Amino acid sequence: MHFASDNSGPVHPKVMQAMVAANEGYALPYGADALMAEVRTRIREIFEAPEAAVYLVATGTAANSLALATLCQPFQTVFCSPVAHIHEDECNAPEFYTGGAKLTLVGDSEKMTPEVLDAAIAIEESRGVHGPQRGPVSITNVTERGTVYSAAEVAALAAVAKGYGLPVHLDGARFANALVATGASPAEMTWKAGVDAVSFGGTKNGLIGVEAVIFFDPAKAWEFELRRKRGAHLFSKHRFLSAQMLAYLEDGLWLETARAANAAQARLSAGLRAVPGVAYLYPPEANTSFAAWSRAGHRRLHDAGAQYYLWESELEGDDPDEMLTARMVTDWAARDEDIDRFVELVRG
Amino acid sequence: MHFASDNSGPVHPKVMQAMVAANEGYALPYGADALMAEVRTRIREIFEAPEAAVYLVATGTAANSLALATLCQPFQTVFCSPVAHIHEDECNAPEFYTGGAKLTLVGDSEKMTPEVLDAAIAIEESRGVHGPQRGPVSITNVTERGTVYSAAEVAALAAVAKGYGLPVHLDGARFANALVATGASPAEMTWKAGVDAVSFGGTKNGLIGVEAVIFFDPAKAWEFELRRKRGAHLFSKHRFLSAQMLAYLEDGLWLETARAANAAQARLSAGLRAVPGVAYLYPPEANTSFAAWSRAGHRRLHDAGAQYYLWESELEGDDPDEMLTARMVTDWAARDEDIDRFVELVRG
Amino acid sequence: MHFASDNSGPVHPKVMQAMVAANEGYALPYGADALMAEVRTRIREIFEAPEAAVYLVATGTAANSLALATLCQPFQTVFCSPVAHIHEDECNAPEFYTGGAKLTLVGDSEKMTPEVLDAAIAIEESRGVHGPQRGPVSITNVTERGTVYSAAEVAALAAVAKGYGLPVHLDGARFANALVATGASPAEMTWKAGVDAVSFGGTKNGLIGVEAVIFFDPAKAWEFELRRKRGAHLFSKHRFLSAQMLAYLEDGLWLETARAANAAQARLSAGLRAVPGVAYLYPPEANTSFAAWSRAGHRRLHDAGAQYYLWESELEGDDPDEMLTARMVTDWAARDEDIDRFVELVRG
Amino acid sequence: MHFASDNSGPVHPKVMQAMVAANEGYALPYGADALMAEVRTRIREIFEAPEAAVYLVATGTAANSLALATLCQPFQTVFCSPVAHIHEDECNAPEFYTGGAKLTLVGDSEKMTPEVLDAAIAIEESRGVHGPQRGPVSITNVTERGTVYSAAEVAALAAVAKGYGLPVHLDGARFANALVATGASPAEMTWKAGVDAVSFGGTKNGLIGVEAVIFFDPAKAWEFELRRKRGAHLFSKHRFLSAQMLAYLEDGLWLETARAANAAQARLSAGLRAVPGVAYLYPPEANTSFAAWSRAGHRRLHDAGAQYYLWESELEGDDPDEMLTARMVTDWAARDEDIDRFVELVRG
Repeated sequence: MHFASDNSGPVHPKVMQAMVAANEGYALPYGADALMAEVRTRIREIFEAPEAAVYLVATGTAANSLALATLCQPFQTVFCSPVAHIHEDECNAPEFYTGGAKLTLVGDSEKMTPEVLDAAIAIEESRGVHGPQRGPVSITNVTERGTVYSAAEVAALAAVAKGYGLPVHLDGARFANALVATGASPAEMTWKAGVDAVSFGGTKNGLIGVEAVIFFDPAKAWEFELRRKRGAHLFSKHRFLSAQMLAYLEDGLWLETARAANAAQARLSAGLRAVPGVAYLYPPEANTSFAAWSRAGHRRLHDAGAQYYLWESELEGDDPDEMLTARMVTDWAARDEDIDRFVELVRG
Repeated sequence: MHFASDNSGPVHPKVMQAMVAANEGYALPYGADALMAEVRTRIREIFEAPEAAVYLVATGTAANSLALATLCQPFQTVFCSPVAHIHEDECNAPEFYTGGAKLTLVGDSEKMTPEVLDAAIAIEESRGVHGPQRGPVSITNVTERGTVYSAAEVAALAAVAKGYGLPVHLDGARFANALVATGASPAEMTWKAGVDAVSFGGTKNGLIGVEAVIFFDPAKAWEFELRRKRGAHLFSKHRFLSAQMLAYLEDGLWLETARAANAAQARLSAGLRAVPGVAYLYPPEANTSFAAWSRAGHRRLHDAGAQYYLWESELEGDDPDEMLTARMVTDWAARDEDIDRFVELVRG
Repeated sequence: MHFASDNSGPVHPKVMQAMVAANEGYALPYGADALMAEVRTRIREIFEAPEAAVYLVATGTAANSLALATLCQPFQTVFCSPVAHIHEDECNAPEFYTGGAKLTLVGDSEKMTPEVLDAAIAIEESRGVHGPQRGPVSITNVTERGTVYSAAEVAALAAVAKGYGLPVHLDGARFANALVATGASPAEMTWKAGVDAVSFGGTKNGLIGVEAVIFFDPAKAWEFELRRKRGAHLFSKHRFLSAQMLAYLEDGLWLETARAANAAQARLSAGLRAVPGVAYLYPPEANTSFAAWSRAGHRRLHDAGAQYYLWESELEGDDPDEMLTARMVTDWAARDEDIDRFVELVRG
Repeated sequence: MHFASDNSGPVHPKVMQAMVAANEGYALPYGADALMAEVRTRIREIFEAPEAAVYLVATGTAANSLALATLCQPFQTVFCSPVAHIHEDECNAPEFYTGGAKLTLVGDSEKMTPEVLDAAIAIEESRGVHGPQRGPVSITNVTERGTVYSAAEVAALAAVAKGYGLPVHLDGARFANALVATGASPAEMTWKAGVDAVSFGGTKNGLIGVEAVIFFDPAKAWEFELRRKRGAHLFSKHRFLSAQMLAYLEDGLWLETARAANAAQARLSAGLRAVPGVAYLYPPEANTSFAAWSRAGHRRLHDAGAQYYLWESELEGDDPDEMLTARMVTDWAARDEDIDRFVELVRG
């Protein structure tokens, strides 16, 4: 019963096989490997973006920070949700990589709305040179609360950004899960909606550790390459990043693993919703959910070794009926029997 | 009728005389001038802090940013009000000087309360290495809305910070106005309340452009000196900063100018409060106030050449009765006749 | 006998009078003052550059660092002499302001030659993304050793830079002294020679503390303004910077003070060269010189209270005949009797 | 015939097997995996340093930059060879990670000597607050020219650093090759010699991409962890870094691969030295060498598909007898027959 995160499970076997297969003889380093050329071609096809610049890095924080640093000047501010990973979970990496830009927190929920975004952007630069200048809008899809923006919602946010001439970044650490959830195509969810750069995640969806950064306009490609090297994120044995990404894209493996993860979450939430006293905080639209039930239920899970996060709650406490919130993430390898057992333990 | 800012008025004549007097012969550069030794002695006396490290810079943003950079690591976050000057009016200078630290906005008003501050600090570091780490608390007194923290209020905030082992910075761009408003002594308002470093303002209170940075514990003095030079804020002809500050401190000139500025604001607000239809947004406790009255009143002022800021409002508009907010700042040189005329124009 | 630096002497009386005169009533802050408009016009006239963007800051390090930060990306390197002020005397301010750019030291003397500069530039970027990228060339005139580049020499260096598409910065902390020494016009020494941005010094030549930064192409003017504010170098009471600079430019005062400083150095060097045993290390072409004579001579000067720097030498020592090097800087206020007395003391 | 770099060859099969083996079930992320606990224990044993703080990152540039950022303040300068990887091959990453520190180039060869290092350190800080302050000494072993410092030589350099109170960093991208070449123990080459922090390389010696950073004094361990996360170098699926490193250390694999690489280089250089007209530029003490021979010889190699770098030379050219320099790196997988064939092609 491993629902703590989609970063703690196993790598898909096909990915590991591709690693082994890539380990033949000598290959050009630093991204000049033949596999990377294939990756580039495949991503351009998948995104219907023949001009796109495509790069690989090994962590999601690197993808986000380097993409933002390329889009943002140090005297600007990035607009994002107050629960955005770039704000809460990257230990100031965006501030570091941008040279000290600010993050402006938009609204008070995990999904930004066009109205609230517009108001947040409008108020900046009312101070001329004194305040930070308007910079990129960063959208996370799947959001950190497990909800999903439709392609139309992304387009509506991007339209606000474009109205101010601002670039749009999409943090797609769980991009595949969002596509599977919405049925949108990669192009519809990104450049057709007005997105300029994507962090295209793989690590949470079956890879060892690879994320692509895609710029639909290649004008800043060289700058990105320099920032990547300067950030120490250029791999000499780059073929082992390429091999992972290529296996990921092969025969739609990336969508298959995302479908499995979302389906596991759907099974989990269907089960839990049927348990009296379980309350969902957000609609579980992809592979992450937040729901509350009694401390007694959590104790049963804990004693059975279930792995998940208690959200701003403590297992310790006197009241067995107190509602405590769980954050549950399912990955591609989640097993039905574990899900069902988890539900039964909540039920008691 | 100049109420736009306390940075647009004249320098006190005694300060200018001191500049002229300092222009005799040769002096050691870079803060080794004899006048600076006197400044150091005087500030230590005034603050009852014989060990304090004392430095001069020429802008308030420099004072704040350098003080914070000395107190804050780049992976930390500074706690401050959402309307703090360091957040809204320094074009990311704190982020720049700290090497990319974050600013965490505490509550939703210009004055932080201990409860809200405590909650904001507590929530940070629930994420271990992933989130920013807790850094200094920065308090602005006089606040950006013209209200004032009492020494006891500063102490209560500092006590929260100390409970977490965090240093406390006081942005005292209008420190003299706060002292005059509260009757607290410099020591009571700072180190006795738990403040570690002060930006001690002079520019808004009669000087050309000098702020002192005071560290009550001199342990980081040398680091500050290096950061000041690296920030390009070390003056070769430093005697002309020293001369201003010395004149400021001489015979309590700094308190005299602050008293004049506060008294002018008191006269202004007494007058305006007596005008039917004028509504104050904040109690005008020092030399700044925010009040609203009809567009018609603003038009009369505008036509008469009165200088002040319309706050998130536009003079243009059809409705003469719409309430528009004014931000009015009085400086040491404000004249009674201008104040009275201003009030009469509002009255119409 | 004050020859330690041109930053320790008095401000020209006309400058101080201008400060006093500027202290009338209220003025718009942050560079919107009427005096700054005059400064802008005058500098454009003097440099024959009607489109130039002109800004004032208060220190030479700020002028250099902000100009370079505007011209240089953080993954680039600045080419300069190994004794450049930006390398030796700014405590990493250029690295700070550029966000971590490197400085590549060109050759081994205070003046770069086109050949050595070309070789230094050529070798960079032989490493693709791995090494730093080529960035601006920074030329100091007057050099840190008191020698002067002619306008033709500046043009030859700039031509090398332009051959690589690189911008050129001129550190003109002693720009007036260089003009007086060479007879070149401001335009000939700068944009006509290929210079893109100038730090136009005033502080070492009679001002309290003002340097202009001039960009001949205004395309990056707004970026500079933001970087200046973010660096905490935007003055609220800006009129007092403007007033200094305007007095400086009025009736050629800036050239008059530079002529006086250079003439004083010429008198000093003429006197010292006539003293047996005095050896000059560099031709004293402006207001700075380096010369060596016996320890006994230095002791006589020291006992008489003469102020100057011993250069990589120690006054303490047994051998009265050992040659110790002096760095002697004359400012506009240097007096003939002091110079002559200094020479006599060396003579012994 | 692959002698271009030790970063383009295959990963050792045992390492790949360990990757596959690590891919079982769920593991705690971010370095809390059980394998990392074993890595820590093994490294402490190997280095005889039971208190050492041990971390893994994926690139050598990350290891160096993060180690230096932890040891160096932004107003300091790092002392290193002018051909150090941190200076020439990291695109300003050390400047970026340190927040703008400088690199002072010591001497003019790939190996620093205590005398030259002492002189370079001594001259810094003669300028007080104006110049950069003294920071860490960084030593590369094996050097970028294939020569090796003995443990005694490292100790002599570290003694100079310690005399000034400065920390010592060792860039050990090829640390195993240096140990094998000298016979020193890990402890003798590091903390017993006065080294404070090591970049302990694996990527060039048979791993996919893992370097350990070791601090012998754990006082700054937490700061390093924060800097690692902020630099985006903390891996969620960290077990796959741990697995590589553990396989590397198991049964001395790391020394075995280094021995193979060095032996291959010895065979290559023995062969080439026996060819008339081949001149070595540096003694090939580990797995890298620089030697020159005629253009005709290089043409034969090129036509046969041999992979290596021409060093500051061009294959194109008229003179078949012109001496061109080759940089040849052998890795653990180099084959005798390729080496012998290479030699024969040079011989012609």
